[in-house]
Amino acid sequence: MSSAEKLTKLREITAEISRLGSIQALLEWDQQVNMPHGGAEDRGNQAALIAGLAFDKSTSDELGALIQDLASEIPDLDADDDFAREIKVAKRNYDRNARIPREKIIEFVLATSAAHEAWVKARADNDFASFEPHLTHIFELRRQQAELFQPYEHPYDPLLNEYEPGMKTSDVRAIFAALRPRQVELLRAIAESEQIDNSFIKQHYPFDEQRKLGTFIAGRFGYDWERGRIDLAAHPFTTSFGVGDVRITTRFLDRDCMSALFSTMHETGHALYDQGLSPKYYETSLGQPASYAIHESQSRLWENLVGRSREFSRFLFPVMQMLFPQHLGNVTLDQFYRGINRVEPSLIRVEADEATYNMHIMLRFEIETGLLEGSLKASDLPDIWNTRMQEYLGVTPADDTNGVLQDVHWSSGLVGYFPTYALGNLISAQLWEKMVAEHPEIPAAMTEGDFSQILAWLRENVHRYSSRYDPLDLVRKITGGPIDPEPYLRYLNAKYSEIYRF
Amino acid sequence: MSSAEKLTKLREITAEISRLGSIQALLEWDQQVNMPHGGAEDRGNQAALIAGLAFDKSTSDELGALIQDLASEIPDLDADDDFAREIKVAKRNYDRNARIPREKIIEFVLATSAAHEAWVKARADNDFASFEPHLTHIFELRRQQAELFQPYEHPYDPLLNEYEPGMKTSDVRAIFAALRPRQVELLRAIAESEQIDNSFIKQHYPFDEQRKLGTFIAGRFGYDWERGRIDLAAHPFTTSFGVGDVRITTRFLDRDCMSALFSTMHETGHALYDQGLSPKYYETSLGQPASYAIHESQSRLWENLVGRSREFSRFLFPVMQMLFPQHLGNVTLDQFYRGINRVEPSLIRVEADEATYNMHIMLRFEIETGLLEGSLKASDLPDIWNTRMQEYLGVTPADDTNGVLQDVHWSSGLVGYFPTYALGNLISAQLWEKMVAEHPEIPAAMTEGDFSQILAWLRENVHRYSSRYDPLDLVRKITGGPIDPEPYLRYLNAKYSEIYRF
Repeated sequence: MSSAEKLTKLREITAEISRLGSIQALLEWDQQVNMPHGGAEDRGNQAALIAGLAFDKSTSDELGALIQDLASEIPDLDADDDFAREIKVAKRNYDRNARIPREKIIEFVLATSAAHEAWVKARADNDFASFEPHLTHIFELRRQQAELFQPYEHPYDPLLNEYEPGMKTSDVRAIFAALRPRQVELLRAIAESEQIDNSFIKQHYPFDEQRKLGTFIAGRFGYDWERGRIDLAAHPFTTSFGVGDVRITTRFLDRDCMSALFSTMHETGHALYDQGLSPKYYETSLGQPASYAIHESQSRLWENLVGRSREFSRFLFPVMQMLFPQHLGNVTLDQFYRGINRVEPSLIRVEADEATYNMHIMLRFEIETGLLEGSLKASDLPDIWNTRMQEYLGVTPADDTNGVLQDVHWSSGLVGYFPTYALGNLISAQLWEKMVAEHPEIPAAMTEGDFSQILAWLRENVHRYSSRYDPLDLVRKITGGPIDPEPYLRYLNAKYSEIYRF
Repeated sequence: MSSAEKLTKLREITAEISRLGSIQALLEWDQQVNMPHGGAEDRGNQAALIAGLAFDKSTSDELGALIQDLASEIPDLDADDDFAREIKVAKRNYDRNARIPREKIIEFVLATSAAHEAWVKARADNDFASFEPHLTHIFELRRQQAELFQPYEHPYDPLLNEYEPGMKTSDVRAIFAALRPRQVELLRAIAESEQIDNSFIKQHYPFDEQRKLGTFIAGRFGYDWERGRIDLAAHPFTTSFGVGDVRITTRFLDRDCMSALFSTMHETGHALYDQGLSPKYYETSLGQPASYAIHESQSRLWENLVGRSREFSRFLFPVMQMLFPQHLGNVTLDQFYRGINRVEPSLIRVEADEATYNMHIMLRFEIETGLLEGSLKASDLPDIWNTRMQEYLGVTPADDTNGVLQDVHWSSGLVGYFPTYALGNLISAQLWEKMVAEHPEIPAAMTEGDFSQILAWLRENVHRYSSRYDPLDLVRKITGGPIDPEPYLRYLNAKYSEIYRF
């Protein structure tokens, strides 16, 4: 085979792997959105079949040999050209998939399946002790997986790299160390200020109008309805079956007019990224989004930098007053804007506001690295959790259900994932600073509901690169520097000192 | 490998093929029900990938050798036991799939793809001439496929057998020859009678109430909502992703209160069969429904023998009067029953009533066998079509769009399929006669909306056998004889002589 034929063959295989991934995503989406109860067992078998086919394709000797041959023809795999990059990423993906022996994969799948079931029960029963052995087992298996990727500075590095290629544990530590005291300080200033009334949010808001509102805003942000749709699901998510079919789900709360809307803005941010991925790299090894943190930066940018801004409130509030005249007729724009930005240290990560969210992540990161290093044992977790929640946020959960048992991640084997949420927050502010510096007219345009320049800038600077660049390289290419907490801190301080008047 | 191990391996493979089929069905269902326009190209690639995997699995040498080995251990493959039957059907399926060379399959897929596109255009433009070469090509390829299955009495036999295992062209001819003059005679008697007013059907009926009605009736028939759901699609169909997830689609017409309802009853009949397939044979070679005609007998039985009966009208009509008081408040039960059973020879098969439907099928069967024998050329079709429509139904289409171009089947390569619709009608009446003879209380129960005995009888006598028996054997097992037009003719004559008073 000539090199050109080898590349063609490589791309055939990556396209098939990509299609199997899309089919897997459809099986899951349908399960969350449509599937009747009785379909569960068959759906499990169908998903396992596709997962097995994708695994076999991703780890085949044929694929390994093709990549090896193509890599040997490239003098510098780190060169900044498309072809070198494609082979480098193909090689990295292949190594990641093929280095873990098949029997260890099966062991891991079985362990997470058992752990997930145990977690559901433990959480319902507030019984951490029954989950503890599963947690220990999951972390032991993850540690074994990490060891296959030596050498590293820290055993957490290879796990983090599954979500953030090129990122190091020491980088995350340094960022969080810079962030922590200043977020604590900000929270103290807020706590000492006069508190804000947001009782207008907590009324009965009819679902039909909530649905209209979310649909309207997603469309205004630029979500392409020819290539997507919004459905109901218990837990909101975004999924993609290809660049032409990127779907959002949402759910409505009865006594909260903002929860579904912010969730929809968040998922729209994810979806705009997936709809904007490059056709050029589509279905190749560079066809995926750059990383989880980059993805999260998109959802957070639309949800927070846009959606929770004073400028956007000027556009949004009249629309909401029209839809909900009895609820909002006597609320002023200033009350609305300050109300939806009320800060309230809470026990639950997914309910956290912008000022507190990162603190939840730091706690989890410290626990993950501690367990992996062996400096913590699973049995220490409830105590550590409660002590640090008090230290960081000034609240202590009454039980483990609302504490250490609240998240699904560890039971699913997701260790190394949490930091991407906080990194996404930081990157969103870095992108925003850069974007607004280049286009100072953007905030004014938002007051009129014009978001076209924001989307165009993200398309141009982020979306269209798919995974042509590693996340840190992409951030550097855009901002000229590394992931940096300063823009986010500047943003938070400016915003909340104005809202809370300190 | 021991025989037991070989059987286990065979069942692993058939289960995988079955799961790929379910995944394929989900890809198609989602495309019809949910998929945004932009997803079409990716969806095509995903479906082609799964189809290719299923083809490879269904035709692998490994599977062929397993079946060969197991078959050689069975003294009599025609024996009436589960194991012999399983291997016999596995062998038949394998032969059917593996005998056609891969390149001929690809040629056929490409030809039907082009033919379908040409048909859509030809139908829109009333331009049969542009479709004619595609039709000739499709029939030529189907003839070549048939030849691979020599010896046979008639080249149509192997095509028919794809849908009706064991059925012969000569059987269908004999049945249709008995049927044709007596259906023509019945239509003459109806035409000479006083005509029936059904104008109450042709009003604006709100979709929401139509939806409630269809959902209510499907549930009363016994459709299990834990294992299914109803959605909207342009063309109603039923699909199954396993015995625990059998979905129906429907669509509502603005100015017709019965079309969606009858369509839902029809699809519910299909779905009840799929929900009732045997767990015992599930995912083995015997796990599929017995045949297309048996499937159609189920849909027709619920749509017609139940849904269009005077007894059912006594239950249905008050419900409809409650839902549509302004439309039906001044209609009597007798007017309703006679109105929904009005006979009207029409040009379009899918709009045909019980008295005329089979005539549409006979015409198509004659054309298919004629083209395959070479006694007809594609260019003859418009003339033949129009002449026979006049002869059988007394109507002549004004153009080919409403004549020979109306059906999608031939452009999709479906040659040999049409007779199953008429055979399904005949079998539905045979089953009904037998069922009511055994349970004479069934008609009275229908007036009260109690259909439990009907479903129980079908479960017991039809559904639970999956494809344990070939269709003709199943009909013989239940009724003691072959497929027989007499019960259907008795049913039609009794029904319409009462309605039309002749």
